[in-house]
Amino acid sequence: MADYTLYCFAQSGNAYKPALYLALAGADWTPRFVDFFNGEVRTPAYLAINEMGEVPVLEHGAVRLSQSGVILDYLVEQLGQFGWRDDTERREILRWILFDNHKFTSYIATYRFLLNFAPRPAAPEVLEFMKGRVRAAIKVLAGHLNGRDFVVGDRLTIADLSLAGYVYYGAEFGVDWAKDYPPIHAWAERIKALPGWQHPYDLMPGHPLPGR
Amino acid sequence: MADYTLYCFAQSGNAYKPALYLALAGADWTPRFVDFFNGEVRTPAYLAINEMGEVPVLEHGAVRLSQSGVILDYLVEQLGQFGWRDDTERREILRWILFDNHKFTSYIATYRFLLNFAPRPAAPEVLEFMKGRVRAAIKVLAGHLNGRDFVVGDRLTIADLSLAGYVYYGAEFGVDWAKDYPPIHAWAERIKALPGWQHPYDLMPGHPLPGR
Repeated sequence: MADYTLYCFAQSGNAYKPALYLALAGADWTPRFVDFFNGEVRTPAYLAINEMGEVPVLEHGAVRLSQSGVILDYLVEQLGQFGWRDDTERREILRWILFDNHKFTSYIATYRFLLNFAPRPAAPEVLEFMKGRVRAAIKVLAGHLNGRDFVVGDRLTIADLSLAGYVYYGAEFGVDWAKDYPPIHAWAERIKALPGWQHPYDLMPGHPLPGR
Repeated sequence: MADYTLYCFAQSGNAYKPALYLALAGADWTPRFVDFFNGEVRTPAYLAINEMGEVPVLEHGAVRLSQSGVILDYLVEQLGQFGWRDDTERREILRWILFDNHKFTSYIATYRFLLNFAPRPAAPEVLEFMKGRVRAAIKVLAGHLNGRDFVVGDRLTIADLSLAGYVYYGAEFGVDWAKDYPPIHAWAERIKALPGWQHPYDLMPGHPLPGR
């Protein structure tokens, strides 16, 4: 049995955040496929595992955790990589993880879901509204990465791994990083070049969706 | 000069989170009014203070922090109240702060803004979409608080203060907690009964908006 079990599926950028950590750290882990698109996260059995009805969930011995930001914090403690040097840096990392959760991932994941996976087509007004929110959040990250190699300090941290969750799905929400946001493109390529990197569709099970 | 300066305005539930901490802890603090509705957060001067273009910002001596979750973490360190007993509890608190940022506050704040403060009326499709997201997030918290006095453990923590950010504005987004979500109502009343509690419109400057 592997050290770590990660509840995930290929289309989830939130699950990709810890999956990428585990891959880059060379950890001993196994994915546990969650059948999101057939409603598994709304079943009583799944809600008993995570009352928030979300992936990812990490199991490590008797420890079970949810929320990607919590799992990343735990992996820093366990595996000692991609963390902070002091408390000031820890807070700067947390600041970007919170921004990611509140605006960057939150808007991008919703917008991408509506464009690609929603059971019914979304109203154009909703897509337009979400697109505006997405662009504003991306602009903040692009401005921050202008002249920087990584989000915090001069090396990869869990702030990068959190913000990178949905970046490699860019075409699915109409963004061409190289053309539209060169600083984000350069940063994403920098992470992609690290030993162990894999695209979310290769790293986690469930791609492509049946019938697509 | 007060120990703490909090950049805030009365309509911001995100600013209310640390403002309420400071009030309940009896700290020596002063608000610094941010003229959000006239665009101050988009000015170069403000973006130099917080590149994310948001409130709250906390200043404490030479320390300047943004993101309510980071500020709450810092206040626990400085003032020693409403924190965790061990690392497991610290992560459980962080889990709820992340859920708050990703879904609870994120959807509620956007929906309330569209209903009350947006310069142009939002399309009904957008309001309907956001309302669905808001209700789903509220349902998770109501389920969790059913049978619990506080979000984590048996006492007030910064998880409660984060999730309570927008709760007292309920009528502005069409929610009657007492009628619709009794566990959230009971919890909000429990916090309201604490010495030092004030409504966000009383605790922070800028209410009512001019002309309303």
